[in-house]
Amino acid sequence: MASSALLTDLYQLTMLAGYFDEGMHETEATFDVFFREAPFKGSFAVFAGLAPALDYLAELRFTDEDLAYLRGLDIFKPAFLDYLKTFRFRGTVIAPPEGTIVFPNEPLLTVQASLAEAQFVETALLNLINFQTLVATKAARVSVAAGDGVVLEFGLRRAQGPDGGLSVARAAYIGGVRSTSNVLAGKMFDIPVKGTHAHSWIMAFPDELTAFRAYADCFPDSCILLVDTYDTLASGLPNALTVARELRAKGYQMIGVRLDSGDLAYLSKEARRLFDEAGFPELKIVASNELDEYVIHSIREEGGEIDIYGVGTKLATCAGDGGGALGGVYKLVRLGDQPKLKVTSDIAKATLPDRKHLWRVVDNRGTFVMDVLSCEGETLHEGDQVFDPTNPARHKIIPANCRFDTIRQTVMSEGRIVSRHPSLQAISEHCASQLRCLPEGSLRLINPHRYKVSISKHLLALRESLMEPYSH
Amino acid sequence: MASSALLTDLYQLTMLAGYFDEGMHETEATFDVFFREAPFKGSFAVFAGLAPALDYLAELRFTDEDLAYLRGLDIFKPAFLDYLKTFRFRGTVIAPPEGTIVFPNEPLLTVQASLAEAQFVETALLNLINFQTLVATKAARVSVAAGDGVVLEFGLRRAQGPDGGLSVARAAYIGGVRSTSNVLAGKMFDIPVKGTHAHSWIMAFPDELTAFRAYADCFPDSCILLVDTYDTLASGLPNALTVARELRAKGYQMIGVRLDSGDLAYLSKEARRLFDEAGFPELKIVASNELDEYVIHSIREEGGEIDIYGVGTKLATCAGDGGGALGGVYKLVRLGDQPKLKVTSDIAKATLPDRKHLWRVVDNRGTFVMDVLSCEGETLHEGDQVFDPTNPARHKIIPANCRFDTIRQTVMSEGRIVSRHPSLQAISEHCASQLRCLPEGSLRLINPHRYKVSISKHLLALRESLMEPYSH
Repeated sequence: MASSALLTDLYQLTMLAGYFDEGMHETEATFDVFFREAPFKGSFAVFAGLAPALDYLAELRFTDEDLAYLRGLDIFKPAFLDYLKTFRFRGTVIAPPEGTIVFPNEPLLTVQASLAEAQFVETALLNLINFQTLVATKAARVSVAAGDGVVLEFGLRRAQGPDGGLSVARAAYIGGVRSTSNVLAGKMFDIPVKGTHAHSWIMAFPDELTAFRAYADCFPDSCILLVDTYDTLASGLPNALTVARELRAKGYQMIGVRLDSGDLAYLSKEARRLFDEAGFPELKIVASNELDEYVIHSIREEGGEIDIYGVGTKLATCAGDGGGALGGVYKLVRLGDQPKLKVTSDIAKATLPDRKHLWRVVDNRGTFVMDVLSCEGETLHEGDQVFDPTNPARHKIIPANCRFDTIRQTVMSEGRIVSRHPSLQAISEHCASQLRCLPEGSLRLINPHRYKVSISKHLLALRESLMEPYSH
Repeated sequence: MASSALLTDLYQLTMLAGYFDEGMHETEATFDVFFREAPFKGSFAVFAGLAPALDYLAELRFTDEDLAYLRGLDIFKPAFLDYLKTFRFRGTVIAPPEGTIVFPNEPLLTVQASLAEAQFVETALLNLINFQTLVATKAARVSVAAGDGVVLEFGLRRAQGPDGGLSVARAAYIGGVRSTSNVLAGKMFDIPVKGTHAHSWIMAFPDELTAFRAYADCFPDSCILLVDTYDTLASGLPNALTVARELRAKGYQMIGVRLDSGDLAYLSKEARRLFDEAGFPELKIVASNELDEYVIHSIREEGGEIDIYGVGTKLATCAGDGGGALGGVYKLVRLGDQPKLKVTSDIAKATLPDRKHLWRVVDNRGTFVMDVLSCEGETLHEGDQVFDPTNPARHKIIPANCRFDTIRQTVMSEGRIVSRHPSLQAISEHCASQLRCLPEGSLRLINPHRYKVSISKHLLALRESLMEPYSH
């Protein structure tokens, strides 16, 4: 990303100026990034966007041009603008690896830095984490729905500008999508790129068979033909088979066909039958046209014979149940030596104060049992009572024979990135292995099992003591 | 934008290679960009994204690095990669000015170039036009709903990455939003930037009044206080009034307060009453919290007293009725000397062939009456029959006493941008003046009047003659 200190909301700068004026800017502060509801009415999210977020923090600085612009706004004092000249992010960031499955109310990123630095980076961090986490989550849902089918992403034309398209390709790969149509994303992130031809290719030739033959001539090794321009069953599939036979006679093997309209379950079954009867069982069937996890699930339930699903708009925009946005927020949890919480009349929306440790309780088969947030330094034991943060009257007992995994590490220290970013491939494999550890029912599309995130006795007590002054 | 030739779908490159191989790449081709349904279940769209689209076309070229990457994919022949070295867009583009109100089925952009060039630029053009047009349309809807209220945009944290946030700010301004929180967008596009402080500012001080006083000390000239951290009526508004009095005593005037939760209609009426009673009728009331055109309309219906609406997520993602994407498509309408159309069993989805002229029929009060698409060179007259493209049995008569406006111009010729991009301010004013010319009921949120886009007798005849071979 093109990082820039100005990629922020103006209020971050006015607050920064205010803290500077009040002499509070050096006070140590801790902020948590978390979301309150899993997107798409699901049970989980796939954490993504960390590498670009850390790059942003490492590179953050105001250029002379930035400062000239701010001076021109005529709202900041010269002493503050001088201070910005050497402003850097020098804090600590704690986060899980990208690709980790995360749940509502748990801190994803925790930022510990001076109040000035920690507050200022809110907007850019949310921008980078919210969208990539949303897309990675959607991609995981789509990939799970596709079962053994392969998913490829081609949402660039409906994405939010060039960079939106790049973010989509990166995050979709993390979530389980195996390739992209976006050539620049392929180059930047080393993602396999795929693509064949559009309807306009067919229309540019006198007839469909001539168009198919021309394409096969150019790409005898990688030929996938779009068969729905005129009539899939009456013309597209028979013409594709003709070309498959011609390629075979020349010693090549056609890859397959793409269906882009109509009843995809029915047409794919007909195509598979035709190919089998004609002695071409190896031909792949690619399908596209407003696919998402629900459509793919339904196609498979009806016995659709699709090998590869092309997903575009629904992945690039994440519209639908998710509302197009992950509602990730950034909240102050500690200032100086004081734990902080945002008080509200609705206990379900009260934040969890102070620096916390996030534990994942895992049973001896490797299945995730529950996540628990404790105070820093507190340890967990089997048999401990833990509490629902949104309704402390509901509690659970930590079961026996489990291990307690620490799922977050220090990923930035004194403003420096602690270790090299893992490859996108490694991140994607981490995500896939995490998905296999979710409890039964967590991946269901409708009304999934809700994974429990609890808080420890000490964290509950701390929160209650902080809310006490406001409870009258 | 950072333009790059690789910002495209791979299939554009495979098709380009195919046309090159077949010797068809120099054949002259014409493509139209159009959409079939107005977004948000509305009646219109605001055309936006033209300036970045033209910049992309003017700068399009493959770098040595791009070519090295493509060579590494091992699917393209050396002669084709050589050809890409000097590949440029040298064609013609016809489009309305940005900010123009446009309707379903009419060509927005028309691209006339060699088949190679015209096909290749599809993905990037759709990426740039689709999203900005969607956001400008949403912004126009929100601004119309706000009436005399002012709308500001602060969607950066929920946008699709940094560049998504910038596109949002630009397009929102075109549609009628008056300022942004996004400082970089302010700098790049000369949009006024606005912002005050977050809840974390309040939480960083021992109590709300101390936090308010500190903010007012720093920004006595531009002080807007966020009043809902603890209790809007019991604490936020009274504390804000205290600070307003203190500022007045020092010769300053507080700007106002911001409400960010609760019943915004009710709270704003209470705030207005308190301010009036206290002798501060000049205080502005800003509201935010998941606002969109429907919520704003409802607040105003209930007599809410809000001066400024802050709109974020719903504008940045355009989720909801619009599905998060404008379904703009790019279709071949002419190749060499042959008009082309995409045939389909559904006449409503058949494309409109050949190069066309887009007329706007305007009555003597300046109100838009209907749009008509004709063949190139054809002229319109009052009394002419014109036809519904989705159902030619329905026809209308062009009324008397109207003028026929040409709403598209040649904006690029031989790959060169014809005239300097207008300022964003000018584009926004054009949009506002166009909105005032829409027929009654077009701006209604629910079930609006559907503006008619018709086709001329000659265009209808041409389409029917081209469909004839497929009608058996």
